[in-house]
Amino acid sequence: MIAAAPGVTVPLPQRARLADLYCSYDDTLNSGALEQWPALFADPCLYKIVERASHEQGLPIAVMYCESRDMLMDRVVALRETALFAPRITRRITGGICVRSVGSDGLHLTASFAIFQTMPDQPSALFLCGSCQDRVVDEAGELRFAERICIYDSTIVPTSLVYPV
Amino acid sequence: MIAAAPGVTVPLPQRARLADLYCSYDDTLNSGALEQWPALFADPCLYKIVERASHEQGLPIAVMYCESRDMLMDRVVALRETALFAPRITRRITGGICVRSVGSDGLHLTASFAIFQTMPDQPSALFLCGSCQDRVVDEAGELRFAERICIYDSTIVPTSLVYPV
Amino acid sequence: MIAAAPGVTVPLPQRARLADLYCSYDDTLNSGALEQWPALFADPCLYKIVERASHEQGLPIAVMYCESRDMLMDRVVALRETALFAPRITRRITGGICVRSVGSDGLHLTASFAIFQTMPDQPSALFLCGSCQDRVVDEAGELRFAERICIYDSTIVPTSLVYPV
Repeated sequence: MIAAAPGVTVPLPQRARLADLYCSYDDTLNSGALEQWPALFADPCLYKIVERASHEQGLPIAVMYCESRDMLMDRVVALRETALFAPRITRRITGGICVRSVGSDGLHLTASFAIFQTMPDQPSALFLCGSCQDRVVDEAGELRFAERICIYDSTIVPTSLVYPV
Repeated sequence: MIAAAPGVTVPLPQRARLADLYCSYDDTLNSGALEQWPALFADPCLYKIVERASHEQGLPIAVMYCESRDMLMDRVVALRETALFAPRITRRITGGICVRSVGSDGLHLTASFAIFQTMPDQPSALFLCGSCQDRVVDEAGELRFAERICIYDSTIVPTSLVYPV
Repeated sequence: MIAAAPGVTVPLPQRARLADLYCSYDDTLNSGALEQWPALFADPCLYKIVERASHEQGLPIAVMYCESRDMLMDRVVALRETALFAPRITRRITGGICVRSVGSDGLHLTASFAIFQTMPDQPSALFLCGSCQDRVVDEAGELRFAERICIYDSTIVPTSLVYPV
């Protein structure tokens, strides 16, 4: 369920549209359809994966950083064609999606995520958990992420981070 | 929140009814009320637990396979009366429930699940995660699963699979 | 999505308000804003953290037990000023929120939770999972927890339980 913070009004049909967007995001990554992932973002956009401790100190470092849909797609192409990594399945589950404020620049939301990873011949295991700080905009009737900052809770850098989060 | 795939229209009251069904399913398994589990299915039905790699190759093998409510109940009776296994608690959490299409044969949905398991005197741990491919039908005002295919992400067979997933 | 048990009617706007409350609860704990946590409860209230096996046997023992908003706040002050513990981040994800009945004393709900914990320089890991048995009341237009009983599945006492659950 999409929630709203105290004092923020989000009509039910709008909540349903947001649910559709958030679910599409998880489905796209879970099914490995990475080529469809950039279309979930506005252009330009901001996509970052950052460590929580760095983020809270305002440090600029990011494990992944993209500012446009082309940069997102570049990332996917690099993954498909040049990166060398063991095959794996990731499963992203999102909870606590909450509209924090509604501004002229879009809807500001936060959410929690847990990502489970399965390596060949190993049991599934928790890979990362954390929160997202998002800005969602309506582009000609389509909701898209203008900003998605994925903030993982652990202080160690996930060296095996291959896929987007 | 129940989501809908792009281009699929699912009215809010229908989404709420689907949420009720999905929540009932998890509650039934989480509370150990297995005798009530078959009633969540249509009759005949298809219930399967399969490994993702097998499923993607179209292989027929399944860890559990039932084609009717009687077969589901048979499974429960076997569990209660003949199976020998260490006691355990399972907790199923479902996310990303999405209506992919609406056909004359019912609603087609996908969802992600994580199942945590707790053995006596041990901490809780992730047991399985994966996705469901479901077909839901309306039988005289009751939504039920005509098909539920549970596809787990790991390639190893969960030898300790005792309860339905 | 907030679900309703068979035979229980919960209008969509009421479901949305419940989603807002449940999401607020998780957000408050996830962001570490413990001082705001007592305001999510009615006064007096009942807040307990109990082991599932004890709870099912009706034993009174609880890992945490509070009967008023002051007791909840006392807990927070103790945590902030006297407790000595390693820093940690907790991430609570709630699923399967279901209205079981509607009475003159409020709404009775159950839900499942998984809590992940991250210690410094360690990967995130599952800490606890279990269920909540809640009673929610409307106080002058604000939904609050009159009762929240958090029942964890494991039989071992989580010695490292520092924060509320």
